[in-house]
Amino acid sequence: MLKNVYTTRIEWSDCDPAGIIFYPRYFDLFDTCTTVLIEQALGMRKIAYLKAHNFAGHPLVEGRARFHKPTRYGDEIAIETVLVECGEASFKLEHRISKAGVLAVEGFETRVWIARDPADPRRVVNRPLPAAVAARFSGG
Amino acid sequence: MLKNVYTTRIEWSDCDPAGIIFYPRYFDLFDTCTTVLIEQALGMRKIAYLKAHNFAGHPLVEGRARFHKPTRYGDEIAIETVLVECGEASFKLEHRISKAGVLAVEGFETRVWIARDPADPRRVVNRPLPAAVAARFSGG
Amino acid sequence: MLKNVYTTRIEWSDCDPAGIIFYPRYFDLFDTCTTVLIEQALGMRKIAYLKAHNFAGHPLVEGRARFHKPTRYGDEIAIETVLVECGEASFKLEHRISKAGVLAVEGFETRVWIARDPADPRRVVNRPLPAAVAARFSGG
Amino acid sequence: MLKNVYTTRIEWSDCDPAGIIFYPRYFDLFDTCTTVLIEQALGMRKIAYLKAHNFAGHPLVEGRARFHKPTRYGDEIAIETVLVECGEASFKLEHRISKAGVLAVEGFETRVWIARDPADPRRVVNRPLPAAVAARFSGG
Repeated sequence: MLKNVYTTRIEWSDCDPAGIIFYPRYFDLFDTCTTVLIEQALGMRKIAYLKAHNFAGHPLVEGRARFHKPTRYGDEIAIETVLVECGEASFKLEHRISKAGVLAVEGFETRVWIARDPADPRRVVNRPLPAAVAARFSGG
Repeated sequence: MLKNVYTTRIEWSDCDPAGIIFYPRYFDLFDTCTTVLIEQALGMRKIAYLKAHNFAGHPLVEGRARFHKPTRYGDEIAIETVLVECGEASFKLEHRISKAGVLAVEGFETRVWIARDPADPRRVVNRPLPAAVAARFSGG
Repeated sequence: MLKNVYTTRIEWSDCDPAGIIFYPRYFDLFDTCTTVLIEQALGMRKIAYLKAHNFAGHPLVEGRARFHKPTRYGDEIAIETVLVECGEASFKLEHRISKAGVLAVEGFETRVWIARDPADPRRVVNRPLPAAVAARFSGG
Repeated sequence: MLKNVYTTRIEWSDCDPAGIIFYPRYFDLFDTCTTVLIEQALGMRKIAYLKAHNFAGHPLVEGRARFHKPTRYGDEIAIETVLVECGEASFKLEHRISKAGVLAVEGFETRVWIARDPADPRRVVNRPLPAAVAARFSGG
């Protein structure tokens, strides 16, 4: 299974008047971690793999998170991301955010592959994963 | 059951290079809608009910969303928010975002009540819902 | 001169641990107000005018703000936006945010027109304002 | 003069439908860089210096940026931050963002020191810089 650990710091800009992270920011982080994982799997940056595979992104069809412990500005966190499942046209990832070794948040994403619609390049349509991508996602 | 409909517009700033909303922004919207619902239930603004009940917020313990259709900048959306369950120390909300009458996104939140820790006002601790709040949440 | 007033509310998600708006959010608001002003001037939504004029946006070359009074979550604000100058390839806007009739923030933007590079549609290049746009911006 | 270089990457979440960074995100970055600079000058994290000096933040009275070159997702950038002036109750910073050694953005901030109002801890008031802070900011 593809796996990655990403470390970052919770910034003042991520936090709300309660002094803790504004929780949608975790979904921003999950998105970054997924990108980093895919970039490593494919050996190229997102900007390159979008071009190589003529696609437009890998949006979510479902996203979920469980929040166990709050994080605050200045907290150093580690996010472990694992690609846990790869289907023909979708794939699943899990993220575990820990702070000082203690689990703080779990995230779950189901994503699909989309491409620009040839009929209207401003629109996007679902696509099966390219064979080369599916192979890498399956550990090939 | 407490219910509210909030209308807004997806802005350029909400969207990503695929031209569709960057999905964590939906969770920002859910948060705003939850606040609006509670403000209406309690008959006061968040800044007032934080003060009245000496509490610090109502963070999530779990959040989830299912994405059925993308939204793009310029799209007018309506978000129907329902408080579906109210326990002693937590409550649940559901959000349904529709565009031109068609369901685009469903959101699910489980939230808890927190207060500033008397021992350290920069920290927060879990609290049962104040009786007055629980009564309103239960439709009283 | 083209002018518009946009009203909105500062949300919890806009604010930082000091309980006041996180100031970059004002620039988000300026961007939305500029879009609304241009949409009204051109009589079409941004998504339509991007297509009509085959362009990619109107990014800033300079942005500035003066912050006179803080705003906090729950504050209702009004943003008056004026297109103060229109050149061949750039235009300037001023924004005045007021709260309960008192000036809170002033914003200043200098923007240019960009189009997708025909040689590489993922890149953007500067362009003179289309004649129809310039005419409207000049009050024609 | 206090100086710092911070490196980061422009993420998909930072970019708009034109495929370039949504410019308010630069102000988010400036804020993070200012925090990092102050943390290094004072030898403690923001969460600690807020507590040590019983203050609530260092908001802007003026912010400005000049945008020379766009940045896009995947771009590695370096931000050089310099504290260029320190007065009794305010201080100024300059940020220079470069990409592959070429200047992309310049930022200018004038900030003030604020503290929680003893009469109402939910409100904030201006304060002179604490002597220890001013000494460090002046290179002492």
